[in-house]
Amino acid sequence: MKIRIYNARVLSMKNGCEIIEGEVHTEGSQITFAGEKSDGIKIAGDIKFDREIDAEGNVIMPGFKNAHTHSAMTFLRSYADDLPLHEWLNNRVFLMEAKLTDDDVYWCSRLAILEYLTSGITANFDMYMMPEAGAKASVDSGFRTVLCGCINDFTSSVKECEHNYNKFNDYNELISYKYGFHAEYTTGIERLEGIAGLADKYNAPVYAHIAETHSEVEGCIGRYGKTPIAFLDSIGMFKYGGGGFHCVYMTDEDMDICHRRGVWAVTNPASNLKLASGIAPLCSLKERGVGLSIGTDGPASNNCLDMFREMFLATALQKVSLSDASALDAADVLHMATVGGALTMGLTECDVLEAGKKADIIIIDLKQPNMQPLNNISKNIVYSGSKQNVKMTMINGKILYEDGRFNIGISPEEIYAKANESIDRMRKN
Amino acid sequence: MKIRIYNARVLSMKNGCEIIEGEVHTEGSQITFAGEKSDGIKIAGDIKFDREIDAEGNVIMPGFKNAHTHSAMTFLRSYADDLPLHEWLNNRVFLMEAKLTDDDVYWCSRLAILEYLTSGITANFDMYMMPEAGAKASVDSGFRTVLCGCINDFTSSVKECEHNYNKFNDYNELISYKYGFHAEYTTGIERLEGIAGLADKYNAPVYAHIAETHSEVEGCIGRYGKTPIAFLDSIGMFKYGGGGFHCVYMTDEDMDICHRRGVWAVTNPASNLKLASGIAPLCSLKERGVGLSIGTDGPASNNCLDMFREMFLATALQKVSLSDASALDAADVLHMATVGGALTMGLTECDVLEAGKKADIIIIDLKQPNMQPLNNISKNIVYSGSKQNVKMTMINGKILYEDGRFNIGISPEEIYAKANESIDRMRKN
Repeated sequence: MKIRIYNARVLSMKNGCEIIEGEVHTEGSQITFAGEKSDGIKIAGDIKFDREIDAEGNVIMPGFKNAHTHSAMTFLRSYADDLPLHEWLNNRVFLMEAKLTDDDVYWCSRLAILEYLTSGITANFDMYMMPEAGAKASVDSGFRTVLCGCINDFTSSVKECEHNYNKFNDYNELISYKYGFHAEYTTGIERLEGIAGLADKYNAPVYAHIAETHSEVEGCIGRYGKTPIAFLDSIGMFKYGGGGFHCVYMTDEDMDICHRRGVWAVTNPASNLKLASGIAPLCSLKERGVGLSIGTDGPASNNCLDMFREMFLATALQKVSLSDASALDAADVLHMATVGGALTMGLTECDVLEAGKKADIIIIDLKQPNMQPLNNISKNIVYSGSKQNVKMTMINGKILYEDGRFNIGISPEEIYAKANESIDRMRKN
Repeated sequence: MKIRIYNARVLSMKNGCEIIEGEVHTEGSQITFAGEKSDGIKIAGDIKFDREIDAEGNVIMPGFKNAHTHSAMTFLRSYADDLPLHEWLNNRVFLMEAKLTDDDVYWCSRLAILEYLTSGITANFDMYMMPEAGAKASVDSGFRTVLCGCINDFTSSVKECEHNYNKFNDYNELISYKYGFHAEYTTGIERLEGIAGLADKYNAPVYAHIAETHSEVEGCIGRYGKTPIAFLDSIGMFKYGGGGFHCVYMTDEDMDICHRRGVWAVTNPASNLKLASGIAPLCSLKERGVGLSIGTDGPASNNCLDMFREMFLATALQKVSLSDASALDAADVLHMATVGGALTMGLTECDVLEAGKKADIIIIDLKQPNMQPLNNISKNIVYSGSKQNVKMTMINGKILYEDGRFNIGISPEEIYAKANESIDRMRKN
């Protein structure tokens, strides 16, 4: 399948937020051309495309990367809001999760993927139980997923993690797997050392929830005399880098370790507000050279899976918390949501629009009132963009969402019905 | 024109967030029936409708009320972001505003109205210069606007305010006018006393930006020995109630005055983040009995005009600032965005769905992935809703937006072209 998208504003993310008049060509799963209009027209003349799309001056850019989520938790959306944290977790989340089947995870993940597509998200970094069900949901949808291990004292084992690592890194071109554990406070030293051992054996980065709440950090200091980052580093967890989800409560030393070890900080601003966790110090992290990316977190704590909401919050919360309206420029945020996310997840072929990269591409509709006037298009995307502006989402060269319609091998209504069946069964039992 | 919307989930906002299976009928500008399915079917049998709409189980509810905005400022969207506040205001906003013509205000207001419609906003409380151009933009679009006076030391006069009050309260059924001034710190005592005199003469409420920033409050205390609310109350400004836009820095005494005088607190959470102003104490205001509503503020400071973003932030920022994930329930937020806004603006006929009320109605599409599963529909709207879910926006009995298409007497493209012409001219001069 060869596709040409012409008459576009190309935001390749290769040169900051530079936008050029140009076009993008794809063949199979790859981008074959991304550049200036005149070059594009010349090259296009020799090629027989299966489809030519007039972008009508709209923006074509790399898809957003959701660098931390728990997709299957759509079953808990709006089920346990406006509750204190301990009640939310113990009386709602854990009780319901105990009833989950593979089938539930499959259908609830497919539901999440529908929403990712509407928000221009072309890959997710997905931490949840029953990874095969999640992987199958992505493959069946045509969606790109990096699975993240979630071992803790209540589920999985080091042996299983190694098995999953080898299995899912050789499963499907849309799927890969990274070592990960749930969090320091849910995972005993033996398992943590086991994961660090696997990181060493496979030269692999490791990911986990880190410094999400103040009490988590206090607890770790009580147990090990160190902050989570410092403690995990001391047992060799980050020898080959990795990432921390949330990173709300970070010391200067933590940030220096992240910088030195190549540990990404993945921010989840909406979740951190809604669960009353706090505001991550993104500007300080950036100043100290820590790589940044953005995740939605799961739909039980956000509750939507919308990169536009997260992008606005990423910068707006820095502004208010630092009392500085100039903090964290829109260009930094767009980089976090695209290139930063891709590099966090090891998707080095999905970061920018360039020949040879994977064709994970979105079209942003500028012909909506929230994108007008065209004073500054990249700021429009970060500050006033919304799902409404996602005109097309292409993953691995295949258009999965276009003008509000899905092309994922099944109707959305069937997925809604299955997800509602799951939740009805779980609520009854 | 008689319209029937059947097979709906009716969220009338009369009984909290209760949702019933039912339908709504309209005739001309009014709702003639809103209630249970069985009653609706019976009544409908005797009526010849011009149009019958199958809502397919989607939600029908009162439109959102944008209780504070500066619509025409779309010309400044993404023109002056990521700048310190004083640079934003002095070197960008004021310089550009000096070049504005009536025509600019008209077209830039029409652009804002397009966006309101996409976000299910059926009325705005609009504070800006050249009110006739704004009023005309609303009337020509079929949109409902309450104009808010914006007198200050640099523009307008007390005499002009009185003239506008009489003129625009007898201008068009879609337009009304409330007394208002920009803010205490931009308006000298003589003009403030003049407005208080008009409030007394017309038994009228008065509105202004109040306690938006810490320095504003400090300045007022320096000038008058009182906080803005206490000072304004001391000169009789709130004899007949009114409202404060922003209300970020409020003392207990301020809140008690607002409660006693019937002064509404209109929160603008996205703007308060982006301009690094702070987080309004909505839970304290509510506890002390102050009426609450929500505004987007203008597109120069937000930058979008989206009630879904504001609703999420209204509750999420309370949660994080109070370290309490149960703070400000979704039901409170929905009330603020509909009934609270209507009452703030004096639109007592636009608050709920009920026979005899104005037909300012929206349909929320539940058949989108962010609205599934149907664990709790009102929480879905507040926590994961987006513009994407606005299927229809009806104002004064007329459908102005439906399934992504506008019915406002002109094409959106023409409005975009005019708005871009305005900004191009202003940037050049």
